[in-house]
Order: sequence, then C-alpha cells, then structure tokens
Amino acid sequence: MNLKDSIRTIPDYPKPGILFRDITTLLGSAKAFRQAVDELVQPWAGDKIDKVAGIEARGFIIGGAVAHQLSAGFVPIRKKGKLPHQTVRMAYALEYGTDEMEMHVDAVIAGERVILVDDLIATGGTAAGAVNLLRNMGANVVAACFIVDLPDLGGRQKLEALDVPVRTLTAFEGH
Amino acid sequence: MNLKDSIRTIPDYPKPGILFRDITTLLGSAKAFRQAVDELVQPWAGDKIDKVAGIEARGFIIGGAVAHQLSAGFVPIRKKGKLPHQTVRMAYALEYGTDEMEMHVDAVIAGERVILVDDLIATGGTAAGAVNLLRNMGANVVAACFIVDLPDLGGRQKLEALDVPVRTLTAFEGH
Repeated sequence: MNLKDSIRTIPDYPKPGILFRDITTLLGSAKAFRQAVDELVQPWAGDKIDKVAGIEARGFIIGGAVAHQLSAGFVPIRKKGKLPHQTVRMAYALEYGTDEMEMHVDAVIAGERVILVDDLIATGGTAAGAVNLLRNMGANVVAACFIVDLPDLGGRQKLEALDVPVRTLTAFEGH
Repeated sequence: MNLKDSIRTIPDYPKPGILFRDITTLLGSAKAFRQAVDELVQPWAGDKIDKVAGIEARGFIIGGAVAHQLSAGFVPIRKKGKLPHQTVRMAYALEYGTDEMEMHVDAVIAGERVILVDDLIATGGTAAGAVNLLRNMGANVVAACFIVDLPDLGGRQKLEALDVPVRTLTAFEGH
C-alpha cells in the first residue's frame, strides 16, 4: 500500500493558499496505520529504545503506537501549561514569533535512548526544539520520525544539522 | 505490577484541593504502559474492532497504542476548531458551562465497532458526549476504556445508563 494515497489534502486550510496534509484518513485505516507504525520504526526494530517522545497532539497518536510497538515508555512533549508536575521548557519558532513547549523534568533519565515522533515535519522548528529539550535532560536522541515530510521547507536539514537521523515515510511538495 | 503504584498524585493541581492523578509516570514506564494497554483491551482481544476513538489529548496516547494492539483504525475526537475536514459537533458539560467536541464527519462508517479510550473518567461528561457523537454517526460503541476511574464522581454510572460497558484499571477516591 502506498501510504501517500491514504493521506488527504485539504486546500486552503488553515488559511488560503495552504495545502493541509491530513493524516486522519491514514490513522482511520487499520491497514495504513499499522503499516506506517511498522515502517517508521523498522530501522530500530532490533534495538533497545527506552522512550518514545511524542509532540502534542497528533504526535501523541503515532507516538503512543510506536512506543507500544517498540515496548518503550512514552514521553509527552506539550504546549506550555498542560503538564502537572515540574517541567523544563524550550522556546521554538512559529511562523510569527515564538512559543514554548514543555516536558516533565523527570520524563527522561540521562543516557536513555529516545526516538522523537510527530506526524509531519515542515520547517523543523518544533522538532528541533524538542530535540534540544530532550538533550538538555541528557537523552540520547536516536532518531526523529515523521509520517509526512514537506521537503521544500527544510526541516530534515535542520535536524540533520543537529546530528539527528531523520526518518520520513512520505513527501509532499510545497507547503 | 500494580498499575496504581505507577500513577503519580499531584496535590492542588490544577487548583487547591484537587488531587490530580498523573498518568505520565505510568506512560513513561515501558512495562506499566504495555501492561495497561494489554489489560484495557483484554476482553476484546479476540473480537473484531474496527476503530478506536481517542479523546484529546491524553486519550490520543493510550488510544494510539490500543488501536495498534487491536489492529484497528484510530479516530481523533478533538476540541472544536482543530480538525481540518468537515466535522460533526457535540456539546458537553464542563464544571462551569459547556464546550464542544468534534469528529470528522467520515471518521466512522455506520455499523463499525468502536472502542472509546481516554486516560481517566471523572463525571463522564466528556465520555458521554463522545459516545453520543459516535452513535450519531452510526457507530456501534462496544465499550469505553479508561486507565483511571474516580468512582465518587459517577462517570461509570453515566455511561452505563447509555448502555455502554465501561472498563477501568485503577480507582482513586475523591476528586
């Protein structure tokens, strides 16, 4: 099955001129969802992975499944103010301005092997922030995995410049 | 392993007098997370389940893993304004006032067997709204599954009054 065929494109969302790549159609297909999870982690199938970190909110769905597949723990990386315990924060760039993401201060132990998961990589600003957040807590970020790559926006290069191997399953031109 | 021991209680969060049951410590333990997912769906392990519906945001993590475990598709139920395609909405009661949740109009097909998943059931207002939303689209809601039950708040009874079997793994007294 070509996973790209199971992703829906919604024109002019969230604003005119943007082609939004909607993975809910992939998630809704038992076959496509399973294939995506299997393919995402295939390079690390035999490795010991301690934690899977998922970025709120769509990264939680895929990250939860990936953590289950790898028999790893799960670490939520959330928008600020959503986690109940003591957190560490990291600023990241938005299209205009910046925002902050948070992780629990005890969510990873130094030296743990962590895979970062989100649905899509665009400019890579959020993912790079998450990598830095995890590394600040001593995590060994083994890879960053995404179902969708928007290669024209350069996110892969941004993560590779941080020495993080990037795995993506589909690519779409444009924004 | 007693799953209750892997859940952290945070006093006075999000406001004074509330004991917040924090499942991130359970999720972060590979062993506890796997045990929770396995136990949640054990009654349906041999059944055909078409979709797992997860409630944003913590229900996405557990729901993603449960969908993977059952080889089912995943349906996100989100706060309003977050889904890109045409949606159906349902109002639900908050402590003060109401809010709305949404699901894509094509997220379930009439007759599909669906399990609803969230991290915790309190008053059951959100879960009951999600059950009604799924049923309005023709879904057969087979069960509602939660890691944590706060039995003093009556959520189980609210769902059972809708003829939805409820499965929970741990219970905490009080709020």
